[in-house]
Amino acid sequence: MRKACIISIGNELLIGDTVNTNASRIGAMLTEWGFRVEQVFTIPDDYELIKSKLEEATSYADLTIATGGLGPTHDDITKKVVADLLGSDMVEDDRVIKHIRDIFKRRNFTFSRSNAEQAMIPEGCEVLFNNKGTAPGLWFKHNGNAAAVLPGVPHEMTFLMEKRVLEKAEAEFPGQDVWVTRYFKTSGVPESSLSEQIGDLGSYLNNGVSAAFLPGAAGVTIRISASAEDELSAKRKLDKLESKLYEQVGDLIWGEGRDLELADVLGEMLAEQNLTLAAAESCTGGLLSNRITDIPGSSRYMKGGIVAYANDIKVNQLGVNETHLDNFGAVSAQVAIQMAAGVSRHFNADIGVSTTGIAGPGGGTPEKPVGTVWMGFRIGDERFALKAVLTSDRLLNKERTVTIVLETVRRRLLGLDGYPYNLKPVTL
Amino acid sequence: MRKACIISIGNELLIGDTVNTNASRIGAMLTEWGFRVEQVFTIPDDYELIKSKLEEATSYADLTIATGGLGPTHDDITKKVVADLLGSDMVEDDRVIKHIRDIFKRRNFTFSRSNAEQAMIPEGCEVLFNNKGTAPGLWFKHNGNAAAVLPGVPHEMTFLMEKRVLEKAEAEFPGQDVWVTRYFKTSGVPESSLSEQIGDLGSYLNNGVSAAFLPGAAGVTIRISASAEDELSAKRKLDKLESKLYEQVGDLIWGEGRDLELADVLGEMLAEQNLTLAAAESCTGGLLSNRITDIPGSSRYMKGGIVAYANDIKVNQLGVNETHLDNFGAVSAQVAIQMAAGVSRHFNADIGVSTTGIAGPGGGTPEKPVGTVWMGFRIGDERFALKAVLTSDRLLNKERTVTIVLETVRRRLLGLDGYPYNLKPVTL
Repeated sequence: MRKACIISIGNELLIGDTVNTNASRIGAMLTEWGFRVEQVFTIPDDYELIKSKLEEATSYADLTIATGGLGPTHDDITKKVVADLLGSDMVEDDRVIKHIRDIFKRRNFTFSRSNAEQAMIPEGCEVLFNNKGTAPGLWFKHNGNAAAVLPGVPHEMTFLMEKRVLEKAEAEFPGQDVWVTRYFKTSGVPESSLSEQIGDLGSYLNNGVSAAFLPGAAGVTIRISASAEDELSAKRKLDKLESKLYEQVGDLIWGEGRDLELADVLGEMLAEQNLTLAAAESCTGGLLSNRITDIPGSSRYMKGGIVAYANDIKVNQLGVNETHLDNFGAVSAQVAIQMAAGVSRHFNADIGVSTTGIAGPGGGTPEKPVGTVWMGFRIGDERFALKAVLTSDRLLNKERTVTIVLETVRRRLLGLDGYPYNLKPVTL
Repeated sequence: MRKACIISIGNELLIGDTVNTNASRIGAMLTEWGFRVEQVFTIPDDYELIKSKLEEATSYADLTIATGGLGPTHDDITKKVVADLLGSDMVEDDRVIKHIRDIFKRRNFTFSRSNAEQAMIPEGCEVLFNNKGTAPGLWFKHNGNAAAVLPGVPHEMTFLMEKRVLEKAEAEFPGQDVWVTRYFKTSGVPESSLSEQIGDLGSYLNNGVSAAFLPGAAGVTIRISASAEDELSAKRKLDKLESKLYEQVGDLIWGEGRDLELADVLGEMLAEQNLTLAAAESCTGGLLSNRITDIPGSSRYMKGGIVAYANDIKVNQLGVNETHLDNFGAVSAQVAIQMAAGVSRHFNADIGVSTTGIAGPGGGTPEKPVGTVWMGFRIGDERFALKAVLTSDRLLNKERTVTIVLETVRRRLLGLDGYPYNLKPVTL
């Protein structure tokens, strides 16, 4: 397996002003392209350190990706280091200088000779043309191995990796094993339960096929990967494992795709069935509506909602029975169901959902500790509520409540039997 | 200046499943404690690599912080490496084994001997007792330098750094120059404008005092740092620069503190003045309410809000004039102001705010391109709207709109003259 090394250059990374998301992104891409990422070096904008790390990395890694230090300020010295490493001079690249002039003209900035510096390229480097910014990437060989130096701006780095580096790597390393990875998303199932329901995968995990459970904020993602000589063979290997997963836990998998959102999947279901939804929120305070409306096109199914943070709002805007509010408290099945029914009625929506609980850190009592939340549902003729006791962390409680609500609606729309985390529905 | 090195251990970091937030957090803490962070190594759970990096780091860095690989699975080998590095055996620590038993009992988990493994400590290491989890941190000396190995779970790592490592480091490195850092937050001011209004700080930036502008999602943060022999001297140095900042841009600074939130500051202002607020949201879809309710204690001033995603909701729930809606469109000053006035009236709140715009990526027209947003305000007797044309990114548009709304209310409550980004208020 070909080896890769990542070098992240930038003072801001070491003093903690910036989180090194580039290294993760590049690591994921290199892994998918079939490289084993050996290490990541994070170093300051220091001439000696950059030079020694580039020297070290290219001496053992087949491919080195370095980011940072290609900007126009005096701190940006990476290009100079590369030139010295290769023992070469700088030459102005015509295409890049024209590109920079065009960018400046479009943005009505004044172009000065100092900006032309970014078009100077160490001889012996190939330009990785950057459509997204002024600094081009560089591709070169050293110690017999390949290296790419890219700007640190995340969307520029991503563009250059996907559109420039990949094809150079494919040409440089033909016959590389291809890796195919698939991500299957679940919510409302603890990892141990998921693992148990999937069962023993032993017979599927051979011949370059692997599986892993990735717990995350919205649930557990199942990642499966396979490597083979070509993409088709790799996919075939994965297909068998994928079928097994769907056979075992198909109902629990709400989608496939590393960055797929539950609100997106649920939204598509609602759009397909011409259903509308409205949300009445107390403890989640707007997060539920926000998650739903983050998805482009959500206006097809999302009517909106009410953030009924004060109790009089629950009564006046949602029609919650004031006597019930006094007797059972705001955090109760009765109030949750009335909120859901009320918002669906007032907003003329097919589905109403609600949240009412104690997000914390204060507000808990022995009977209703922090993290207690009731979620109400009106789906067609169904009206029910779920109760969960979550954590002591306010933001985590908001997030998890939203996930449980979305996953519950998804499962109800599909007519599935179970509820997230095996919660038991209460009807009144 | 004492040197520090960070080693982040974990396969998941290299293949990109996890972003290395620990390294940033540790880097920031070490920098505040007066160390210069030389590099960060990110390596897999590999025996040889962990050993060689610990050897290398402790040979030149005064303090090395390594995280990861202290868990109970077979991948977790860091402790074994440390034992071999020190040439010592493992010994069971009584306090830790009791702690682990207690945790298991509390959570109703069955304790088995394999769980006792986490209480085995390499001889020669000091235990950094971990109240937040089962795996203790380790403190040891090697090559004459100090090192700490901590679990990779972020909140456990943070606890151990703040409560255990700091005091060990202070004892190990007495007389270390002390760094004091302050962060001043602004919103709605471009960096260049802020810099211009602050003016030339040259005479203040000497003798170990530095300043930097950190652009972020919610605005520009001004960071000032000073080092001195003791904390009091460092603070005195900063006080002069701080006074200058407040003299120049005092109105623009809404708070001090690295992680301080604008919604928190505004919330305290509302609470102090016994004012209540309600939000009517269209394009921000719940984000504004969510930001406000993320703050504990926000029920003191936040009545709630309406997410009026569909136009009929604007009319039915907020009392927006349907003829105006038809004539001027939902994205207009008229509708924005009516939404703000309507929600404040229906929710019986002193202050009403609203957002209506085109978040994107679709929905734009030549007259109202994607990113066009009107924000409405009813504050006491004032009713006005602001219009901004933001970006083509949906989530960024939501975020920036929320920031502009919060900052506008803050400035109005203080009776300040300017509006965020020099937007001009429209009254009708």
